[in-house]
Amino acid sequence: MSSFFDSRLSESRSLFERALQVVPGGIYGHTSPAAGLPGIFPYFAESAEGCRFTDVDGNQYLDFMCGFGPIVLGHQHPEVEEAAARAKAKGNLFNVPSRGFVELAELMVQRVDFADWAVFAKNGSDVTTWALQVAREATGRKKILMLKGAYHGIDAWCAPGYGGIIEEDREHIHRFEWNKLDSLVGMLDSLRDQVAGVFVTPYHHPSFAASEMPENGFLTKVQAECNRRGIVIILDDIRTGFRLHAGGSHRRFGFEPDIACYCKAMGNGFPISSAVGRDSLKTAAAKVFLTGSYWNNADAMAAAATCLTIIERDKVPERIEAIGDRLCRGLTEAAAKHGYVLQCSGPRAAPYPFFEGDQNLRLAQSFCGKAVRKGAFFHPHHNWFLSAAHDEKSIDEAVAIATECLREMSEAGEKA
Amino acid sequence: MSSFFDSRLSESRSLFERALQVVPGGIYGHTSPAAGLPGIFPYFAESAEGCRFTDVDGNQYLDFMCGFGPIVLGHQHPEVEEAAARAKAKGNLFNVPSRGFVELAELMVQRVDFADWAVFAKNGSDVTTWALQVAREATGRKKILMLKGAYHGIDAWCAPGYGGIIEEDREHIHRFEWNKLDSLVGMLDSLRDQVAGVFVTPYHHPSFAASEMPENGFLTKVQAECNRRGIVIILDDIRTGFRLHAGGSHRRFGFEPDIACYCKAMGNGFPISSAVGRDSLKTAAAKVFLTGSYWNNADAMAAAATCLTIIERDKVPERIEAIGDRLCRGLTEAAAKHGYVLQCSGPRAAPYPFFEGDQNLRLAQSFCGKAVRKGAFFHPHHNWFLSAAHDEKSIDEAVAIATECLREMSEAGEKA
Repeated sequence: MSSFFDSRLSESRSLFERALQVVPGGIYGHTSPAAGLPGIFPYFAESAEGCRFTDVDGNQYLDFMCGFGPIVLGHQHPEVEEAAARAKAKGNLFNVPSRGFVELAELMVQRVDFADWAVFAKNGSDVTTWALQVAREATGRKKILMLKGAYHGIDAWCAPGYGGIIEEDREHIHRFEWNKLDSLVGMLDSLRDQVAGVFVTPYHHPSFAASEMPENGFLTKVQAECNRRGIVIILDDIRTGFRLHAGGSHRRFGFEPDIACYCKAMGNGFPISSAVGRDSLKTAAAKVFLTGSYWNNADAMAAAATCLTIIERDKVPERIEAIGDRLCRGLTEAAAKHGYVLQCSGPRAAPYPFFEGDQNLRLAQSFCGKAVRKGAFFHPHHNWFLSAAHDEKSIDEAVAIATECLREMSEAGEKA
Repeated sequence: MSSFFDSRLSESRSLFERALQVVPGGIYGHTSPAAGLPGIFPYFAESAEGCRFTDVDGNQYLDFMCGFGPIVLGHQHPEVEEAAARAKAKGNLFNVPSRGFVELAELMVQRVDFADWAVFAKNGSDVTTWALQVAREATGRKKILMLKGAYHGIDAWCAPGYGGIIEEDREHIHRFEWNKLDSLVGMLDSLRDQVAGVFVTPYHHPSFAASEMPENGFLTKVQAECNRRGIVIILDDIRTGFRLHAGGSHRRFGFEPDIACYCKAMGNGFPISSAVGRDSLKTAAAKVFLTGSYWNNADAMAAAATCLTIIERDKVPERIEAIGDRLCRGLTEAAAKHGYVLQCSGPRAAPYPFFEGDQNLRLAQSFCGKAVRKGAFFHPHHNWFLSAAHDEKSIDEAVAIATECLREMSEAGEKA
């Protein structure tokens, strides 16, 4: 196996060999080697601060994944850490919730314009699946519509792949196409009076493909179709909620769901997720069981309240968007200089950069492989994440690395 | 609503009135008022240390629920807190796991005798549902058998109640009876070659009823029936895993599952759960997707490694069993003195005490209502939890409170 690994990853390799002995696949899920660039991306991290992290071999990286989203203010943000530590110093897990539970619910309802109530959990999947059940409870219907290529978590109704899945798990799940209202309306017509809920994302962010923004008021029209048919519209805002707008990503795109699910950017890494919803669904929501051993932990509640407060106070979404724009412009210009067309799809705060014509992602993989070896952690087939800890200096440093990679690619004659 | 609440709970009441405005049901799940003694149990906690907690009104309680299980060493255990803080000081949530992920997996495999591999998640439900999928993936079969009255989490296949559940969610779930091998065998015969997995608990711990230990080698026989039919036997050891035995609760009861699920006592309150399994299931396990935004957080990994180490080093299960025995003997003797027959069912480390003949739980509710007002937090219809922080002094204090409650009940002529 040793020749497969970059020599700079010897401790990563050694730990992974140990992991393979005691963990199926060694590392699973979105952080598994197969989900990145095996043998090139680091396998294990040692430390992180601000917008940088260090792997177990001591290699340092500018972090453009931010833990796949949760790190919205930067690693080890002092205010968030202090708020959590202060809460935790009094004890963390009680037989009943703490004061912070109520305060955070009040903050969520105040922050998200259409929200009349909030609940909290640990995983994004906890709240997307619960929202699905609330839609079924509220409507007495079974069918759930979701977008082709959307990711709503690991539960059987929507998990990527088919491992351990049986057909009954997805018997009432139907998939429509992004930005194609006809695809939705046709489905709603053929499933008349059977559809409980429609899941949407604020913009389309599949893996292995460019992100797509809503066109021609797509989400507003989806909302109208759902509203007039008594269907619950559920916004899965887990990927970018509170990173694009302090009031939730729907504010950027001019529509209003009935339920929204949040997770990643809520607590700057502290484990917490949330669903919020309208008053009309409160009774149904109270009937769908939800609980978990650690869901009331006080530190995550305090971290989330502080993180959400900072996001609004410091205009974090605007800052991240601006810094992301600097990155995207820098990448596009550097690419053009070396004969490539590189575009950044999706919002600037969570861009999915791609090379034009790069159908098999060969250029993206080459580019990200070179970049990570030079100290910039870019992902070849998942959107990136910017944080409030990224400043102009770190962006310019990343663009300089990218420029060097593109020059090498050009000199080697790499083409899409 | 004010007259409904004990006057000592004015801040709990005020916070709950706020919670009702912004949370469906005010507080949900196992910590909801309806799941305890509404108006009598505190609704919100302020702080906790060792085996005691304080509610938001400043009322102090001896804690016999330990956060419904996670607090196995006592609230704010210094060694666990320090280990987690040390890990966290280097950063907590990276783009890849930390060293602690491998170390904890190695520890789990070393600690649990039949385990060849481990995975980690956040909720108990994460790992029970994943184990179900691994059983289906490994066998290519659909049917899952579980015990009547068992709790395996909030997912649709097993959640208590029917809110948001559709019949398809449980189409392949069948329930057999505890300690009745015929009930299982009859089901296995009628579902020949269709059963993927059988869920068991180390002993039977339904809510609202006494716990029942395995009789006549029940679990050993269940294991034999599963083994000879190629069915995956899954131990849900979330309730008491590592509290009854440092190697997992199956060690107390002389059987070996194929997969075991742990959660509550793993991290002394830090959010973590785990599934471990046999080598024969490793390939199937690698095919069933599992991941979550916060699952690799370094602090919970470090907390769990430290907690599990202390559990073995300090013979915590033996200590908790002994201290639980002191409590149970004290309660039974005090009850007898005042004309009641009080028995402690289940293991002494997590006893479910009940009054003989108390079918409608009237005596249990009266007893626990009086006790909580005097400073002992006992639960009327869920098993209790002891921790390593409970010492003879705190037990004797609790027994003195219980004795006073029983005397009052007797004087008032309360009968089952």
